[in-house]
Amino acid sequence: MNQVNSAFAELLQNFARVGHINAAQQTLFWETRTTMPAGGAATRGTVLSTLTGIAAEAMADPRMGDLLDRAEGEEAEALDPWEAANLREMRRRWRHETAIPVTLASRIAAHNSTAQSVWDKALREDDFASFEPCLQQSWELQREVAAIKSDTFGVAPYDAMLDLYEAGLTAATVDPIFDDLAQFLPALLQRILDKRAGEPAPLKLQGPFSVERQMELSRKLAGMIGFDFEHGRIDTTVHPFASGVPGDVRITTRFDPEDLMSGIMATIHETGHAMYEAGLPGEWAFQPVGEARGAAMHESQSLLMEMQAGRNAAFLPVLGTMLREHFGDGGPAWGDGNILRLYRRVGPSPIRVDADEVTYPLHVILRYRIERMVLAGELRAGDLPDVWRQMMLELVGIAPENDRQGCLQDIHWAAGLLGYFPTYSIGAVMAAQFFAAATQQDPTILAGLGKGDFRPLLAWTGANIHSQGSSAPDSEAIMLAATGAPLSTEAFKAHLAKRYLEE
Amino acid sequence: MNQVNSAFAELLQNFARVGHINAAQQTLFWETRTTMPAGGAATRGTVLSTLTGIAAEAMADPRMGDLLDRAEGEEAEALDPWEAANLREMRRRWRHETAIPVTLASRIAAHNSTAQSVWDKALREDDFASFEPCLQQSWELQREVAAIKSDTFGVAPYDAMLDLYEAGLTAATVDPIFDDLAQFLPALLQRILDKRAGEPAPLKLQGPFSVERQMELSRKLAGMIGFDFEHGRIDTTVHPFASGVPGDVRITTRFDPEDLMSGIMATIHETGHAMYEAGLPGEWAFQPVGEARGAAMHESQSLLMEMQAGRNAAFLPVLGTMLREHFGDGGPAWGDGNILRLYRRVGPSPIRVDADEVTYPLHVILRYRIERMVLAGELRAGDLPDVWRQMMLELVGIAPENDRQGCLQDIHWAAGLLGYFPTYSIGAVMAAQFFAAATQQDPTILAGLGKGDFRPLLAWTGANIHSQGSSAPDSEAIMLAATGAPLSTEAFKAHLAKRYLEE
Repeated sequence: MNQVNSAFAELLQNFARVGHINAAQQTLFWETRTTMPAGGAATRGTVLSTLTGIAAEAMADPRMGDLLDRAEGEEAEALDPWEAANLREMRRRWRHETAIPVTLASRIAAHNSTAQSVWDKALREDDFASFEPCLQQSWELQREVAAIKSDTFGVAPYDAMLDLYEAGLTAATVDPIFDDLAQFLPALLQRILDKRAGEPAPLKLQGPFSVERQMELSRKLAGMIGFDFEHGRIDTTVHPFASGVPGDVRITTRFDPEDLMSGIMATIHETGHAMYEAGLPGEWAFQPVGEARGAAMHESQSLLMEMQAGRNAAFLPVLGTMLREHFGDGGPAWGDGNILRLYRRVGPSPIRVDADEVTYPLHVILRYRIERMVLAGELRAGDLPDVWRQMMLELVGIAPENDRQGCLQDIHWAAGLLGYFPTYSIGAVMAAQFFAAATQQDPTILAGLGKGDFRPLLAWTGANIHSQGSSAPDSEAIMLAATGAPLSTEAFKAHLAKRYLEE
Repeated sequence: MNQVNSAFAELLQNFARVGHINAAQQTLFWETRTTMPAGGAATRGTVLSTLTGIAAEAMADPRMGDLLDRAEGEEAEALDPWEAANLREMRRRWRHETAIPVTLASRIAAHNSTAQSVWDKALREDDFASFEPCLQQSWELQREVAAIKSDTFGVAPYDAMLDLYEAGLTAATVDPIFDDLAQFLPALLQRILDKRAGEPAPLKLQGPFSVERQMELSRKLAGMIGFDFEHGRIDTTVHPFASGVPGDVRITTRFDPEDLMSGIMATIHETGHAMYEAGLPGEWAFQPVGEARGAAMHESQSLLMEMQAGRNAAFLPVLGTMLREHFGDGGPAWGDGNILRLYRRVGPSPIRVDADEVTYPLHVILRYRIERMVLAGELRAGDLPDVWRQMMLELVGIAPENDRQGCLQDIHWAAGLLGYFPTYSIGAVMAAQFFAAATQQDPTILAGLGKGDFRPLLAWTGANIHSQGSSAPDSEAIMLAATGAPLSTEAFKAHLAKRYLEE
């Protein structure tokens, strides 16, 4: 289907335009976090907001709904499968973009901008009270959004929020997974801690470790995984992230001169995101169907690289050799056995981003349950610190010493993100299921990792996930096709039990 | 005037939107030249072209002409002087943007994109023949533009082209200035060379000079001039440039490990551009009246910094001290006298960008005369190499050895820039007149330079030029107000004669 005058052809043009604007925003966002001088923030905010407005106007153009109707009607039969999938994704994007009235959208944009500054200050000063009214307002605005989308889409409010980040993900999927993990993980954690109580603690790698050398090693590792520096960059930022536009995929990482482990793993994690972006179908660049399937799927690709491959017993000796080459002093801390134990430390921490793969989902489950309460109107911001402390104690087994280490630690709610948190741990569960299937289907994957050869693994994720873009209606369809089973906690639980109780 | 429903208020909004898009383009352009991986070029081209299209559509909106008419009609009396000036600049911008039919504009955009690659290859291979058809086409497209604008604006074709880069600049102004310089400079050059024939050549500063240390010194110098690193950056690129958006002004420079002089002066030159951008009236950010007056005025600010202040006998000892602190080996080459002579070398060169301030205008006059012939239909691309050689011999006194060092050296015509070259030397003439007036009006300026204190100079340019934005109708009005006289070659000629025959 490509008649010049078809509604579909016009949609292709309109969405490409929006795609180009989004690409400009991506690059400017990257620039804001990496090279922009502090004094450029005000102009950057203005510029990004105008670009957002232009993209929103393009979506809100009354012609757009008509074009979608026509393409879905009289033209539908002429579309090939990818075109039909693109049309489905166009409709989905359009529904989310146009559901919220412009006035509400600008109120939210204005509020979020303020809320993030207020949050930032409150975090630095450990002063939840100063953030509380702001948070309450954020939650109320998100409840308004959820209510409107719930009405418009005919789904439950929380499901409408989830769908924005991961198409088709619902509480009906998340609940049993999280309930199962909330049962399983605390018990597993206890067993791991019991088992390790009798073992000596791993030896610390003694720093300082030059940031330049860490970057060198990071670039080598990213290149080993398949990162293409002709079509990408690695830089440092306070909060690592990955960002991609067609042909130009960038990651950032951060290095601590005293802690060699964290920066290197951050690089591997972000490289996982980058490989997904780089592997998207180029012929669908700037079209909705050419984009990553969703936030949970994206996280599955970073965690597949970091947790499944990067900390795999097959790969850690390769990483160990590289660490020794770049930093090793020949002492006992630098042996493969100790390095493996260092990369597999487990223990409760109040901070989500510092958590290990065993306790991380518990942090997410806590936030998910709070979000459910918020949307149900069962929690006010003023009660958050107490609820947080109590739930941390129940789920992770420790209470934060203050709000800085407690309910103030994440920017998400201040940024207007509600429904995003679950994607982190759904991604972890997906990663385990993908990796188990991949290594079973292709035995050269593990053998490859043992030689630092990621090509077999990338061949599998490339074919089954990356090159699919958003052609499948949801991640569940990709999961089924790739692993032969619907998403479940089985592989994730088996993975953790094996790694932390057997290996 | 700020009634919400006025045509002027709507124009302010529309032009702000275009201003924001232009700011996004500026930053993306900077990013393309500094940090973008090579493989990102295709997407970047697409993104920039979409943004250009969106800005062009905003200008071409049929409502825009009506709004301008209404604001210039019934609302004109209510406007204060800055508002009226902004409206005048809106009309000027709108006329240039809408004069060219969309079809011609896209033909030109497509051609320029190809032409620059063809030029690039031809330059590398010294193969003019491969570029010739492209150049002929570039010239013909620019002749079309000039003819249309000439009809629409009711001015001569070349004046219509000049006006795009420097409002109100005409051949009637340029001709006598360039004719005078074409007479004066070759004779001056001969006198300088005769005078120096009996003197020993300056001693070379022996490298290599670490690029990191050169950047350090560059940052120190830029900071000394007033560059604010909270609101700007300095990076390195192949071709140095300055780019500015409100609150975020960036320059790039380049360093040659074997040649300490050129990189340092490139920094001072670009810092001059940056100070103009940084000094523009912030309350008119993103509006046409808040922008720099024109390309010649911009070049006057960079050359005022590089040629008038930077190579001034009062300042060179300060620079000499800094050079010695950063690089000096204590040898005789590092004395103030030798450094001054190094910064004042004069001699014919075939390459414009390597030319000194005495011969540089001759390179520009050559290009100007060729452009006049092109628009008059008196020159075909095939004849360019011969014409170039002959004119170089006449004006500069040497002939290029090949087209690489001759008519292939500049990207301008391949990039569709015709009418831009004159602004370089009009800027040089303006710089001399500004500096002469400034130092006469305020004796602390020269005294300041002698101590590395640029504040008196910047106070003068800030008040008389930078903060004026485009409030005056043209640079001539700024020149008259600031120096009490219309633009003439007097100060420039006196400056050169004094510096190169007396000092």
